[in-house]
Amino acid sequence: MAQAIPKKSEDYSGWYNEIVKRADLAEHSPVRGCMIIKPYGFSIWEKMQQTLDRMFKETGHSNAYFPIFVPKSYLSKEADHVEGFAKECAVVTHYRLKNSDTGEGVIVDPEAKLEEELIIRPTSETVIWDTYKNWIQSYRDLPILVNQWANVVRWEMRTRLFLRTAEFLWQEGHTAHATRQEAEEETLRMLDVYATFAEDYMAMPVIKGSKTESEKFPGAVDTYCIEALMQDGKALQAGTSHFLGQNFAKAFDVKFADKEGKLEHVWGTSWGVSTRLMGALIMAHSDDDGLVLPPKLAPIEVVIVPIYRNDEQKSMVEDKADVIQEQLREAGITVKFDNRDTHKPGWKFAEYELKGVPVRLALGPKDLENGTVEVARRDTREKEVISLESVTTHIKSLLVDIQDNIYKRAFDYRAANTSVANNWEEFTNILDEKGGFIEAHWDGTAETEDKIKEETKATIRCIPIDTKDEEGNCIYSGNPSKRRVIFARAY
Amino acid sequence: MAQAIPKKSEDYSGWYNEIVKRADLAEHSPVRGCMIIKPYGFSIWEKMQQTLDRMFKETGHSNAYFPIFVPKSYLSKEADHVEGFAKECAVVTHYRLKNSDTGEGVIVDPEAKLEEELIIRPTSETVIWDTYKNWIQSYRDLPILVNQWANVVRWEMRTRLFLRTAEFLWQEGHTAHATRQEAEEETLRMLDVYATFAEDYMAMPVIKGSKTESEKFPGAVDTYCIEALMQDGKALQAGTSHFLGQNFAKAFDVKFADKEGKLEHVWGTSWGVSTRLMGALIMAHSDDDGLVLPPKLAPIEVVIVPIYRNDEQKSMVEDKADVIQEQLREAGITVKFDNRDTHKPGWKFAEYELKGVPVRLALGPKDLENGTVEVARRDTREKEVISLESVTTHIKSLLVDIQDNIYKRAFDYRAANTSVANNWEEFTNILDEKGGFIEAHWDGTAETEDKIKEETKATIRCIPIDTKDEEGNCIYSGNPSKRRVIFARAY
Repeated sequence: MAQAIPKKSEDYSGWYNEIVKRADLAEHSPVRGCMIIKPYGFSIWEKMQQTLDRMFKETGHSNAYFPIFVPKSYLSKEADHVEGFAKECAVVTHYRLKNSDTGEGVIVDPEAKLEEELIIRPTSETVIWDTYKNWIQSYRDLPILVNQWANVVRWEMRTRLFLRTAEFLWQEGHTAHATRQEAEEETLRMLDVYATFAEDYMAMPVIKGSKTESEKFPGAVDTYCIEALMQDGKALQAGTSHFLGQNFAKAFDVKFADKEGKLEHVWGTSWGVSTRLMGALIMAHSDDDGLVLPPKLAPIEVVIVPIYRNDEQKSMVEDKADVIQEQLREAGITVKFDNRDTHKPGWKFAEYELKGVPVRLALGPKDLENGTVEVARRDTREKEVISLESVTTHIKSLLVDIQDNIYKRAFDYRAANTSVANNWEEFTNILDEKGGFIEAHWDGTAETEDKIKEETKATIRCIPIDTKDEEGNCIYSGNPSKRRVIFARAY
Repeated sequence: MAQAIPKKSEDYSGWYNEIVKRADLAEHSPVRGCMIIKPYGFSIWEKMQQTLDRMFKETGHSNAYFPIFVPKSYLSKEADHVEGFAKECAVVTHYRLKNSDTGEGVIVDPEAKLEEELIIRPTSETVIWDTYKNWIQSYRDLPILVNQWANVVRWEMRTRLFLRTAEFLWQEGHTAHATRQEAEEETLRMLDVYATFAEDYMAMPVIKGSKTESEKFPGAVDTYCIEALMQDGKALQAGTSHFLGQNFAKAFDVKFADKEGKLEHVWGTSWGVSTRLMGALIMAHSDDDGLVLPPKLAPIEVVIVPIYRNDEQKSMVEDKADVIQEQLREAGITVKFDNRDTHKPGWKFAEYELKGVPVRLALGPKDLENGTVEVARRDTREKEVISLESVTTHIKSLLVDIQDNIYKRAFDYRAANTSVANNWEEFTNILDEKGGFIEAHWDGTAETEDKIKEETKATIRCIPIDTKDEEGNCIYSGNPSKRRVIFARAY
């Protein structure tokens, strides 16, 4: 194989890039800032999509599709929203090319200029609330519980595969409700869906909390998020759920008649996760040998590698492998049998470790004699030889074990890398020496938040939902504080 | 309910538009030429997607994702391709907005002009072949069998929901092969997948054939298509599969080393179907009361409408409806129980007819007494009262019947509207009086094809694959012809 992957402990960023590349997850496109999601990477994203989509449907949502183009004037209708998104958008100004008169290929046809420029959606609140205006007349039309899977574009100068790209894939839920309470409940319900997905499927523990005023979504009343800790001690925002209040309803004049016939503005939410989750998944679990995938999101849960020296052995091993495959598939397990003779077993072992396949079975002539098979698990690298008779039961429970173990490892890592800081010195020492999440008191002002960010690059990741009030003093200003918040340097 | 839907026989176009609107399938967006696919419409598209995606995977394909942006220069690399697509594309020229100095909202920031304009993909051959250049070195890297589900934009001035919109959703398969034969086989394999999907799922018979030189995809060597007949006697191209030869490999310099180490250009195919299939599905089967859906693509296969006069009856009927629902779900049937008390049964009957739900069960107090339920099928409007004991078995076979019957009806319609024309007079008479498919001789020249189109608006839909050679004379020029082709006016 090619050069070794940089060690995670020595060059985290290089390690990440190499894993994304070598495990065939994604690559940069010639168009600046855009990415190509390769088949293996996309098959992981598909597992995420399918799981989330099911969870959205189970909570009463339907999918729909809204146009990719946002008229420029729409962006301006909500004051905070335009501030947040106008600075980084792709603008369509023309609708035709033509052959140049000087024979230098095609040029933009100046005659085909749009009257109003179109923005490629950075998010769809404006287009969707403009539509909801026509869908909503009475309380009977509410709630509207809609989601869309789509591509969005936010022009970015400094990009990283999956974590920050100009174009990315995501889902955006947009709901409309008759009451504030219902909309607030929806906001938190979807936050819970995201947290459950992160923990139960991605095996990635998250903190649920709300964003500060300066970090919230442009146009939202409250933004909630799930925050995860990566293996370099930096935080990653893995999903957000926004309570929009009546802001977009007012901007787009969306009212409904209540049971008494009184007209009221509609209450809204929006919530989204994106291909950024792929970055989180990679960084949360992988090691120096490559990707480590939780079985629930692994496109291949088990790979069988045959071992043989001659055609006779090959054919015997293949016959047995076919039987094992069949048994595992019947048990609902995704199996790949890699019997390519263009590559040696050792190469294949390394390849599937790189790709994070949770379980590898190696089957050779000795195994056939003994009625056994060698089982290797990706997370701990442990190997054992088991009886072929028990292979299905064994692997079923092994996959559960691996899922649990990966979560536990990430949970323990986070526990070990979550610190309490009670003053500025403690705070800066922890940041520089250890990183991770820091629970600290903050005086609640944007000014202090900004100064801390300026001096340390640490931001308030969230005001956690599940912690108790506690009297204290702000680590920066010394002013009183009623609650600890979570600080970290972040992606 | 509102005004009646225009009759199909009197105002086909108005009828189509009203069905799309009233069945909650889609609507026009404020951005010219774009559409909003509403939740019910999208749920039908999702069924199509899931089925096609499974069929693609069963034939060895994987999904991936490529950027939405095509650098302007890429389009020009294949001569025919740029001719075909440059005239109708959305062009991104800037990447930022800013507040205007005169306070009139946001304007395009002239400082943020792109060095090279980006086209929103009208199709992705150029971006993908540019990528394949890096993926392919040797015969061992082939074949590449990739598909993507994506949105594309082709600027259109005259649009119609689903049938022709500026932005639409589609899938595009892009494969790369070591030999001409393999690529040609792939082209036809995917054509067969499309034909199977159209016939077995959409219940829509199609003719498989190849396009003439003037109708083929810009950049293809051969374009194959499936053509369906709508209820107004016009044809609709429902899917295309292109043999690209080495055209894109040459344009993007994609070569592979064969087993002897000799460098050769790669052979390619591409194939796609789009949300246009929704238009085909609607037009193929629907009637004056609304949509008629084949059960295999119906988001709701069975709706249960309760009938009651008081709360006591309501509760008894609901209990029984729950039992029926449960039984049907266990049998793998998608059921909706509509027990809203905001609408009367008659309103619900009309609503689910409009939405094309294949089977409706009506359940009232009399049924409880008699142990029966009223079953109405959407396709024939027949009703019958059956014993509750046999409800699952009955409905299972009824759904199969409906699927078959809808196909047969469309097949018979097509048979009755496929004519043979042996001279110009016959040809024009059939076109004007009856429409439909016309099998006629053509001399094989683009000149004749153009003239026929100019004089009659009829085009050659395809040169069918499954017909025999037959000597004859071109209906227009009288010159000799070896085979009949299919003419029709088309969408």
